[in-house]
Amino acid sequence: MFQNDAFRALGRQECLRLLAEVPVGRVVYTRHALPAVLPINFSLDTDASVLLRTSPDSDLVRAIDGVVVAFEADEFDAATRSGWSVVVTGRATVVTDPAEHERLLHTGPTSWMPLRDAVFVRIESEMATGRELSDRRGITRP
Amino acid sequence: MFQNDAFRALGRQECLRLLAEVPVGRVVYTRHALPAVLPINFSLDTDASVLLRTSPDSDLVRAIDGVVVAFEADEFDAATRSGWSVVVTGRATVVTDPAEHERLLHTGPTSWMPLRDAVFVRIESEMATGRELSDRRGITRP
Repeated sequence: MFQNDAFRALGRQECLRLLAEVPVGRVVYTRHALPAVLPINFSLDTDASVLLRTSPDSDLVRAIDGVVVAFEADEFDAATRSGWSVVVTGRATVVTDPAEHERLLHTGPTSWMPLRDAVFVRIESEMATGRELSDRRGITRP
Repeated sequence: MFQNDAFRALGRQECLRLLAEVPVGRVVYTRHALPAVLPINFSLDTDASVLLRTSPDSDLVRAIDGVVVAFEADEFDAATRSGWSVVVTGRATVVTDPAEHERLLHTGPTSWMPLRDAVFVRIESEMATGRELSDRRGITRP
């Protein structure tokens, strides 16, 4: 699925627009020296960083705070073999500033799970790449 | 989204059954020392390994042949905040045995893209883990 005419590379703005359309993406990171991936709901902040809400004592926080991770989202339609995928790569950091945490309690993502305590994790969208796979070669959706 | 009553851990057989229901998953690996992820259609072989079909000169083949990768699939419903995710972790290898390659040309996955040449990549399902997120706490689907 690479370097093929059936794929169209997406620009940063298109990537961020598509990312804003879906509720769930996947954090890609390393855990115990092995590739790891976790689906999680998210939202985009005004600066286009990806925001997650999770438990402060979660494995995820321990694994990704301060390190570069990838965050992926996609949508595919098997019937037409078409769709798109977007990957944001950047540093993940737990939001520690109290004012910022307070702001995100109101504007950030909610959790799909009941959480006793919540922390927000910000993934900076330092790099945003994406591809669109069209159902007819060379024809992309409007 | 961890260590929470709203999640139910899935056994290996449940993981493989769910994996067989979806056409697209995501290969999770490392590229240039950064976490990388690529969605790709796949099928399951009779030994429960994940089979991909791609171009022999693809970046993916160069990056994952001979190394341990993760392969993730999921389905979520934002309306009910429910769904499942499965991760298979194991060694990826390009199928080089001619008889095996020939068998997979007939029984393996097709590519969603036109490929000049095709190779099959097998990801052994050495480890298969999964979680189900139910829409009502403690109630899982039948």
